[in-house]
Amino acid sequence: MKLTILGCHSATPRDNARPTAQVLEIKGHLILIDCGEGTQMALRKQRVKFARVKHIFISHLHGDHVYGLIGLISTFCLLGREQPLHVYGPKGIQEMIELQLKLGNSYMPFELHFTELEATKSVQIFEDDSITVSTIPLDHRVYTNGYLFKEKPNERHLDIVACEELNIEKAYYRKIKQGADYVRENGEVIPNERLTTDGDPAKSYAFCSDTMYKEDIITHIKGATALYHESTFLKQHEDLCKKTKHSTAAQAATIAKKADVGMLILGHYSSRYKSYDMFTDEARPIFENSHCALDGKVFEI
Amino acid sequence: MKLTILGCHSATPRDNARPTAQVLEIKGHLILIDCGEGTQMALRKQRVKFARVKHIFISHLHGDHVYGLIGLISTFCLLGREQPLHVYGPKGIQEMIELQLKLGNSYMPFELHFTELEATKSVQIFEDDSITVSTIPLDHRVYTNGYLFKEKPNERHLDIVACEELNIEKAYYRKIKQGADYVRENGEVIPNERLTTDGDPAKSYAFCSDTMYKEDIITHIKGATALYHESTFLKQHEDLCKKTKHSTAAQAATIAKKADVGMLILGHYSSRYKSYDMFTDEARPIFENSHCALDGKVFEI
Repeated sequence: MKLTILGCHSATPRDNARPTAQVLEIKGHLILIDCGEGTQMALRKQRVKFARVKHIFISHLHGDHVYGLIGLISTFCLLGREQPLHVYGPKGIQEMIELQLKLGNSYMPFELHFTELEATKSVQIFEDDSITVSTIPLDHRVYTNGYLFKEKPNERHLDIVACEELNIEKAYYRKIKQGADYVRENGEVIPNERLTTDGDPAKSYAFCSDTMYKEDIITHIKGATALYHESTFLKQHEDLCKKTKHSTAAQAATIAKKADVGMLILGHYSSRYKSYDMFTDEARPIFENSHCALDGKVFEI
Repeated sequence: MKLTILGCHSATPRDNARPTAQVLEIKGHLILIDCGEGTQMALRKQRVKFARVKHIFISHLHGDHVYGLIGLISTFCLLGREQPLHVYGPKGIQEMIELQLKLGNSYMPFELHFTELEATKSVQIFEDDSITVSTIPLDHRVYTNGYLFKEKPNERHLDIVACEELNIEKAYYRKIKQGADYVRENGEVIPNERLTTDGDPAKSYAFCSDTMYKEDIITHIKGATALYHESTFLKQHEDLCKKTKHSTAAQAATIAKKADVGMLILGHYSSRYKSYDMFTDEARPIFENSHCALDGKVFEI
């Protein structure tokens, strides 16, 4: 998995402090998560081959998370995109986009599908051969979901030496990697455990922005390989968290620790702070493997 | 008058090729004309004190002219703007903006007024003590207006020597500058021409984007101090102009010449061209005083 941070700042966008947008490469998918104003410019700047994006997940309908979506879709139209595009987001997102496309009299050369979300419990909203995507209900000023992107279990590793010693036909290797036992013509069963070892662990990425501290999140993201959790504020402004329904870096780290995730990525910084180090300084005593998102930064997960 | 080009490129926005947006300073007004995606970033980059903008004029509802408007308005909300904001644009613009504000559950600390346009003839849509603004109907793929920003006649220059020789009371200077004759207590009339000379000529700026070649424009912009006329293409692609309802640099220059304007500013360049000089090279043989708009360029008019 590779995560490219296109923007990780809250509220009012600047060229050097872009609003929320991320690209996740996972099992051949190129997924866009949130799409603040200027995301298409950031995609070009990072040289992301964004024509490959087939799925866009929007957390909520605040401008710094969605106002770049209509521009990106329009650009897909202008570029003559042909393959379908799937957009997942809160109820209302379809009307918001379709109204603007209608007023611009846009010609749509591709199918645009919306999955509008209203559930307040976690639901699985996407599945194919290689991944699943589920919502993570968050607590913000408007209806908001985080998303859990999860690889499906990887194939088991073949123990070639054992297979050859036991004269396993190569034509069965594929099925064995998928977990099947081997059955000889005479009915003898060679159990899978004798022929394989565990596959690489399936990775997962949890995206949680924007939200106030919410322990319910923990069950949904338990053991995730990586967690992005917003940290708009530092502890000294915890009062603002309550008022605006955001989190501190310490709160993000607490969630990371309680959910026993592999790493924590902080972001959605308020523009009042002059240094990113302040966020990791606050988070690391609670959760050591904490890192700051930065516009343009790439995380190999 | 001072015109700051925030963006002057067509279609898909890039950091180094921003979509259409301009700021016009005219008689103490700071006016925003069109507002493509990323305009608020460009305003910050150019250090424009954009809180001073009270009037925004949108030519049409294609993305590269309007998709930055909702973000700018949201930023005004976040910054706690108090003074009213007036937006002028095609019918539909109010619904487009209000729907997005509603879905984002935005708190509006200021009054937001819309003037929706439908007329296909030129109409005056704004007037105060110092300027007027009228529409310039254009011919594009969707309903589109250019705008003519016109200073009201400037005050006449006082001929101080003459005034003192003729013993004019200073209290009347203001009225005389505005064109009044001076009347002595005994009824004697000193005509204004003896006390003043012509004031500075009133300036005007005509903004025409997007449009195909349309001679009807000429009557509306006759003698304008400066004209911005789109030149999406060069002559070699005149066929594309007809198809997409845009203009060539040569056509823009022809309009400038026939309207006898003071200067021509070209812009809205297609990304297919690698040099801006090609546009002035095509325009200047027809209209000498032609210049290229560039992102960030300032024209003193």
